[in-house]
Amino acid sequence: MARDAEDTKRRLLQAAADEFAQRGIAGARVDRIAAAANANKALIYSYFGNKEDLFDAVFHALVVDTVHDVPIDADDLPGYAGRLFDRHLSHPEALRLAIWHSLERGGAALPDAVILADQGKVQAIAEAQERGVVSRRFPAGELMIMIVGLSILGSPVLVMTQTDNVEERRRTVTEAVRLLTEGDNS
Amino acid sequence: MARDAEDTKRRLLQAAADEFAQRGIAGARVDRIAAAANANKALIYSYFGNKEDLFDAVFHALVVDTVHDVPIDADDLPGYAGRLFDRHLSHPEALRLAIWHSLERGGAALPDAVILADQGKVQAIAEAQERGVVSRRFPAGELMIMIVGLSILGSPVLVMTQTDNVEERRRTVTEAVRLLTEGDNS
Repeated sequence: MARDAEDTKRRLLQAAADEFAQRGIAGARVDRIAAAANANKALIYSYFGNKEDLFDAVFHALVVDTVHDVPIDADDLPGYAGRLFDRHLSHPEALRLAIWHSLERGGAALPDAVILADQGKVQAIAEAQERGVVSRRFPAGELMIMIVGLSILGSPVLVMTQTDNVEERRRTVTEAVRLLTEGDNS
Repeated sequence: MARDAEDTKRRLLQAAADEFAQRGIAGARVDRIAAAANANKALIYSYFGNKEDLFDAVFHALVVDTVHDVPIDADDLPGYAGRLFDRHLSHPEALRLAIWHSLERGGAALPDAVILADQGKVQAIAEAQERGVVSRRFPAGELMIMIVGLSILGSPVLVMTQTDNVEERRRTVTEAVRLLTEGDNS
């Protein structure tokens, strides 16, 4: 029974990720999520709470997955940026959820999982700066924001950053991060 | 009479910009736009067409305004990036509309005004590269995307890129663009 419950939760989170990624929070329908997961709608409320709680659970799970699958390597930030770039291409849902969250919730704080993940990245970059592996030209937090920002250029989620030449864009992103992080000449 | 019509159109576009920026395309209500503009709803259909057409008209107008108010200066791309950064802070609606467009219309093409504006920027950068003012390390189109992408880091529209220290972020953006565009040492 416990295994069945875990399996149902997993199916519900996957179906919810698809629904929220496509339609956002206001546009998502709990009915559709339950049907796609082949589960009873009442289970969603029982497991996760209301629709907003379910969104938070999905967003949290996607962030945890991303940090697990693409851990920061502060000794090779260009390589890390390239892997994040690849991740946004293969798993666009996480970025879509982050953007829906921004547009629909306005100034609401990010989920704790996102804040913790970002703090971990900043700390790793700051340590690499202390070791002299990464330039101190920019504060660690500013470097983190630029790396994350550059890595989404190429994602199909934002029409303005799409490209027909993914390989060229990947080179752009990794080369830009190299220039921004390599040893100071000043 | 003609002046009254122009004035009504202007009020409708402003009200529509506010409504679309806040609620997106699906969430926007033509009733609310007409009421906010103190105009008859039928005028919207008569002047602009349906809700999607009105969105396109608003998006077009905001892009034209942005290019007019913040023209590219390929001889000073860090300065240009700084002015775009300021623009996103003072006029967040244009970015919000671009992002709603991406999320709600999926792979739909950008409005012609956006494509033309981007082509103009790429051409100006390419010419500056030919004159030796801007590094040829990156293709002009890639530089344009990075400058536009970096300039939105700090906008309150995306929660993940918000900052408490706007001055520091502005320095980050302009300094990054300087590093990415200054003369090759390779």
